[in-house]
Amino acid sequence: MNDLQARIDKVLQQATRTALAYAQRTLEERSAFLSAIAEELEKRSDVLIDTAAGETHLAPERLRTELQRTQWQLYSYGQACREGDWLDIRIDIPDGAGTENPGNGDAPSWTVHRRQNDLRKMLLPLGPVVVFGASNFPFAYSTAGGDTACALAAGCPVIVKAHPAHAATSRLVAEAVQESARRLGLPEGVFQHVEGGFDEGQALVLHPHTRAVGFTGSLEGGRALFDLAQQRPVPIPVFAEMGSVNPVFLLPEGLAADAEGFAKQFLQSVTGSAGQFCTKPGLLVGIDSPALDSFREYLSENIGLVPPQEMLHPGIAKAFQHKRADALAVESVAVAGTLSCPVGRNDSIPTLAETDAAAFLANPVLHHEVFGPFALLVRCADGGELLSVAEALEGQITCTLVATTDELRHCPQLITALQARCGRFIRNGVPTGVEVVPAMMHGGPYPATTDSRFTAVGADGIRRFARPVCYQNWENELLPAELQNENPLGIWRTVNGVLSRDALGNN
Amino acid sequence: MNDLQARIDKVLQQATRTALAYAQRTLEERSAFLSAIAEELEKRSDVLIDTAAGETHLAPERLRTELQRTQWQLYSYGQACREGDWLDIRIDIPDGAGTENPGNGDAPSWTVHRRQNDLRKMLLPLGPVVVFGASNFPFAYSTAGGDTACALAAGCPVIVKAHPAHAATSRLVAEAVQESARRLGLPEGVFQHVEGGFDEGQALVLHPHTRAVGFTGSLEGGRALFDLAQQRPVPIPVFAEMGSVNPVFLLPEGLAADAEGFAKQFLQSVTGSAGQFCTKPGLLVGIDSPALDSFREYLSENIGLVPPQEMLHPGIAKAFQHKRADALAVESVAVAGTLSCPVGRNDSIPTLAETDAAAFLANPVLHHEVFGPFALLVRCADGGELLSVAEALEGQITCTLVATTDELRHCPQLITALQARCGRFIRNGVPTGVEVVPAMMHGGPYPATTDSRFTAVGADGIRRFARPVCYQNWENELLPAELQNENPLGIWRTVNGVLSRDALGNN
Repeated sequence: MNDLQARIDKVLQQATRTALAYAQRTLEERSAFLSAIAEELEKRSDVLIDTAAGETHLAPERLRTELQRTQWQLYSYGQACREGDWLDIRIDIPDGAGTENPGNGDAPSWTVHRRQNDLRKMLLPLGPVVVFGASNFPFAYSTAGGDTACALAAGCPVIVKAHPAHAATSRLVAEAVQESARRLGLPEGVFQHVEGGFDEGQALVLHPHTRAVGFTGSLEGGRALFDLAQQRPVPIPVFAEMGSVNPVFLLPEGLAADAEGFAKQFLQSVTGSAGQFCTKPGLLVGIDSPALDSFREYLSENIGLVPPQEMLHPGIAKAFQHKRADALAVESVAVAGTLSCPVGRNDSIPTLAETDAAAFLANPVLHHEVFGPFALLVRCADGGELLSVAEALEGQITCTLVATTDELRHCPQLITALQARCGRFIRNGVPTGVEVVPAMMHGGPYPATTDSRFTAVGADGIRRFARPVCYQNWENELLPAELQNENPLGIWRTVNGVLSRDALGNN
Repeated sequence: MNDLQARIDKVLQQATRTALAYAQRTLEERSAFLSAIAEELEKRSDVLIDTAAGETHLAPERLRTELQRTQWQLYSYGQACREGDWLDIRIDIPDGAGTENPGNGDAPSWTVHRRQNDLRKMLLPLGPVVVFGASNFPFAYSTAGGDTACALAAGCPVIVKAHPAHAATSRLVAEAVQESARRLGLPEGVFQHVEGGFDEGQALVLHPHTRAVGFTGSLEGGRALFDLAQQRPVPIPVFAEMGSVNPVFLLPEGLAADAEGFAKQFLQSVTGSAGQFCTKPGLLVGIDSPALDSFREYLSENIGLVPPQEMLHPGIAKAFQHKRADALAVESVAVAGTLSCPVGRNDSIPTLAETDAAAFLANPVLHHEVFGPFALLVRCADGGELLSVAEALEGQITCTLVATTDELRHCPQLITALQARCGRFIRNGVPTGVEVVPAMMHGGPYPATTDSRFTAVGADGIRRFARPVCYQNWENELLPAELQNENPLGIWRTVNGVLSRDALGNN
């Protein structure tokens, strides 16, 4: 074991010791912990925003909004944790009556089951979770961000691998989390902060005590961690959110209703925060029409007026410049609008490119995300070409349709094709602006994420870090409170097939 | 593309065409399909049982019970499909009021969120699912078994790779499924049956149109398919249930309450169906005491009286003989009871072996499953040794505790250790006899399965094959019925944080 491995081993040993103690904290205590973190962040908000602005070049007002969103995540996932719906409690107990339809003595024998055992199932924490924060959201998807909030709500200790591009911010947030733990008398190992690079990340993912991984970042980074985790002697779940092209399909009548209005919205959505959002719309697909001309005209004329902005870090800027150049190098791809002034070496270059459907279909390089303020407009001759473009796409976090109701009634194939490829399906709007509510789905088929069955945003994300355990024929007093007859926590439970918040015997 | 790949490609092309049509069938139609399969199995029950008995050497009465269980699975998962709780519907709509606590104007700003968008989320099918049946359950975990029932309920077309050890049975079951599809006017590709060996299996898992895999079988087989699936350019979920040692911990007072009664139950549980159950208790761990002596004495004297039985197929018999020999070859492991008569070359040899805690801890070979009628009794000097054995174990489908309530009050560490290692935690009973109800958990930490977050038994297993999609700002008429304002299907939905079966506006 070398020095690095010894250091990581110490972290995981501590997390594992803590895991048992923390898993036994009540839902109420976990919820209070999440609220306390939100409060500690509030106390430090000015220094947090200053530090993050310095490290990420994001605007302070944008960071203030993000910090508030992060606090809301902590608070609202804590509320969800306490309410307990996410535990998916199922209780089946012998009831004498089986599931027979009373009054139907002719029911085939296989439709009747007499319950034999007292079986009670709920979700329990997986154990230590390693979280890799995102460069583009120093608060909401990083140290005390969504993955951390979900894992803590699930009852798992968290080890954050700090993003090197905002290590000072990460350290300050970590202190806020650790102070919250101290205030509530939680064991120190409930949250640990590790700084370093790829080697530290690899050692964390490979450590046998690590039970799950949350990641937000690039496809290359996410896939590398996924592969490491799946090739372990004991594979572990990895939820990696790896970005997306977020295609937007513009049907003529829908677009014509307000071509300039949509153009304004999309200009903002493509270029806001230098296009450094995983839901930035990077692909705009339309059918040749006067409305598409107006839309294109507005965007191409105005995108060059958006001031350049220093990107998150030099690596992101370099990747943006390379990927932008690769797209523009494709024959039949032209620049429709961009900056004409010179920019700094780490600055974004807001760009609208354009091409036709044939070129798009022939060049897979155009299907990949260009992270930054870049969008490609694909002009299609007709609905058939538009459908071909849709069917050529990989998995996406979002797909968007700008269309009238009547247009949609006439394109079921397009709807089917897009729905099969995304986690969130948007009508007449922009994909940026991820709302933190239970109905949100922030995920999608690969390569958007490594597991389309889970979400990174909303309290359903807690389930990524928990697993069901069924207790068979246990005494009431030895069961977790969540499963006891009296339902002391007032949780919704499915009892002999019926959802209820009642005590057993009263439903 | 070689011949085999071309054949598999044709299967997946058909499944993919069908996927779109089948996904649009209503929950009611899917439910009717599952019930129809149960009916078609009933019509063929005699020939099915005869054929399976010939192929697997399992007793006809055992197969009849299994067939009935298979029908119950189809029926009850169909009912669950229709009721729709599994869709995990969440609806968040702007309500003007946000989530503010009325009457608490002092609430911190981050505890308030005003919903911006109309967001509605439900689970949709993943697409074509490949199912690998188990050798030991020709009905319940095979062609029309649990994985198939779950995938069809989720709205996914199924491709079954028939188990070569009961190919004729599989073909007959496939005909029953296909006849049900025809009767209900479902497209042919909703269920396809592929015979062959490892090459066919590999080609099915690697085909780009395959969206998920269900597997029940050995650790070697499951891990090989898991690795193939994770190393694809587009990785896909694999739920592989790979068996277990199913340890049983016998505390002195609990055992003393009825040492011979428990011994009788465990004798049956170890040797029933020649021990060919994934929940067979293969490890019995006790503390030296007169009760343990009685328990051991009954088992050792009677296990030799259990008649040998031809095992499922020659490969299973050979593996059993090898793994049994490997365990018995360990120094300090002795035979406590076994057959004295000669047996046929493919017959089981019911065996109780015994050893002490030190030998168990020092020899990982003793931690692995011996599939067949074999159990190892580990005698511990005290509770400390017993705990060490528990903490040395891998992931399990089940763990069992035989103990009094008072004993359990005094061994929280043992409870914690076992709970962390299993999917189902049993008190004073045997692990065989998996009840098909929603509260069942049939799964567990690796190597019991490849993903401890899902179950192979019970309607929650449907979720293995579905993923959430969120519709943002869609017109009511264009939404799936499940998400429409009127709640025409009467499904439980979480609307602005509150579970309800009402139409929107009425809750």
